[in-house]
Amino acid sequence: MNKQILVTGGTGFIGSHTVVELQNNGYDVVIVDNLSNSKVEVLDQIKEITGIRPKFEQFDLTDKQKVKEFFKKYSDIEAIIHFAASKAVGESVGKPLMYYNNNLSSLMNIMESMIDCEVSNLVFSSSCTVYGQPDKLPVTEQTPRKEAESPYGNTKVICEDIIRDTIKAYPSLKGIALRYFNPIGAHATAKIGELPLGVPNNLIPFLTQTVAGIRPELSVFGDDYNTEDGSAVRDYIHVVDLAKAHVVAIERLLTGKNKRNCEYFNIGTGNGVSVLEIIKSFERATGEKVPHKIVARRAGDIEKIYADTSFANEELGWKAQSTLDETLLSAWKWQLRIAKM
Amino acid sequence: MNKQILVTGGTGFIGSHTVVELQNNGYDVVIVDNLSNSKVEVLDQIKEITGIRPKFEQFDLTDKQKVKEFFKKYSDIEAIIHFAASKAVGESVGKPLMYYNNNLSSLMNIMESMIDCEVSNLVFSSSCTVYGQPDKLPVTEQTPRKEAESPYGNTKVICEDIIRDTIKAYPSLKGIALRYFNPIGAHATAKIGELPLGVPNNLIPFLTQTVAGIRPELSVFGDDYNTEDGSAVRDYIHVVDLAKAHVVAIERLLTGKNKRNCEYFNIGTGNGVSVLEIIKSFERATGEKVPHKIVARRAGDIEKIYADTSFANEELGWKAQSTLDETLLSAWKWQLRIAKM
Repeated sequence: MNKQILVTGGTGFIGSHTVVELQNNGYDVVIVDNLSNSKVEVLDQIKEITGIRPKFEQFDLTDKQKVKEFFKKYSDIEAIIHFAASKAVGESVGKPLMYYNNNLSSLMNIMESMIDCEVSNLVFSSSCTVYGQPDKLPVTEQTPRKEAESPYGNTKVICEDIIRDTIKAYPSLKGIALRYFNPIGAHATAKIGELPLGVPNNLIPFLTQTVAGIRPELSVFGDDYNTEDGSAVRDYIHVVDLAKAHVVAIERLLTGKNKRNCEYFNIGTGNGVSVLEIIKSFERATGEKVPHKIVARRAGDIEKIYADTSFANEELGWKAQSTLDETLLSAWKWQLRIAKM
Repeated sequence: MNKQILVTGGTGFIGSHTVVELQNNGYDVVIVDNLSNSKVEVLDQIKEITGIRPKFEQFDLTDKQKVKEFFKKYSDIEAIIHFAASKAVGESVGKPLMYYNNNLSSLMNIMESMIDCEVSNLVFSSSCTVYGQPDKLPVTEQTPRKEAESPYGNTKVICEDIIRDTIKAYPSLKGIALRYFNPIGAHATAKIGELPLGVPNNLIPFLTQTVAGIRPELSVFGDDYNTEDGSAVRDYIHVVDLAKAHVVAIERLLTGKNKRNCEYFNIGTGNGVSVLEIIKSFERATGEKVPHKIVARRAGDIEKIYADTSFANEELGWKAQSTLDETLLSAWKWQLRIAKM
């Protein structure tokens, strides 16, 4: 019998890629998603890639009663990957209560049901945002967390705390928080990828939409940072590499290889790449030109961050594989595909 | 027409004393309390003191629908004092989800209704626990907050964040977080006071129960701290002084005298007092002996904290008035009264 994994937010960007990798590794998947920021057609796309349509339940995880009913119905869940969350930094500043409520309540409801229904294993979508602008680079998992820059970022810090404290109180529970750096790219088949609603907040969808002619020009926010070319530096990781990290995290928990009940891993490439380097790499990989202009820094953006991934490399036996050119080419292929949708 | 103030947790220890002071200052009060840690008879006691029985609604503020219905029914609320919360540090370690859920969800529900129903003014029960063990004493409102020592403490930090971020997003809202030091004592009439369920977690109720013969001996946790007599030092404030700070905070908001939309005030006496000094002061004030023994430090206890109250003194025109002996005598009179209940 395959092991059953609950993937919340499983029709979203990272969620859908993770479902594919889980199915490819012999797991059964049930997705819960409220479809607030994704489309149900993603299920068909996943089936086209893997041959299996994941089970799907549409409801909002902030609804405690529905969460309880779900766990009653699916009594064979062995682990949970909790992606479902509101995720736009800028929007969170304008709608803080929505972010606190969505992101905290859904986690609390899930963990209550974990206790009630004896589901022991949780993998949580955390973020390098918990480090803020670190004093030292690259950041390790021991780098101190900082006061968050946005309500969104704060929900990641708080969710890590809720998980840590709950696992401490209930020693049968185990959790892994994966601190993502900047996930980009799309599945090699171009059947799933990032589907931003409205004007994208993130660099890559904005860039690919610009090259596709949907946006007139890409704004590069700041060229006066203390970085090699003055533009901000991030650690961009292929979403499929990131998805694979979830599979190994699940395996670690299910086989009891975790060394502590609550663990944290940086999931990045280890390479810091500037916005201007992204543009160059994209142009090299695709042969397309990226119309762009330098504009003022954007409030809340940090200067530079990239991961020390040695802990994940050693402990999880996982390492990001894709080159930046490959990753950006996959993003472009996805953009070409959705232009036809 | 008197102004109507919602006091959540208004049948609790600090809540009930604050209701008395509000009514004495011409405010109408409606209390919401789920009575999980207080008794409905407190309403009669308040009436005996002030001549007015406050309006009362019993429900749980984590129930969003009930909160909405409440604000529809009471459309004339001008300000909210939000006391309702789970408050036992030790219990929060064992039941973290209960603490996160109770304390965060109730605040989020209230703030959502503030936005929906255009209630602008919020006074929030924060705590000196947000400072952890500070590097420098006394602590001012600028003293950096620290990683919380318990889920309870963390909920205070997070609630402050939720209030700050929500007020930033909705400039019509105003809030004051009062960071309480250690409230003790009882109303001079001995009609209201602290009513701990089960074995008290806090020093004074344990002490008065010991003197009353309910507990065999008071445990003094640690005499090897770096303090004058080796026992831990706190800033103990008479609950009536603390209650009065809420009235001036409400007046500050209602008269628009606040200087920022979101303000923080330390509410203490400014004096650091050790556990052994408390015992001496109690014995002096009451003529009773306090049987006690020194035991090991208690996990999670900090060594020493007391407030710099100059900001509250100057900005609120408020200062704690009671002496420690008076305060402890009021606690003892309350203990004698509940012994007869």
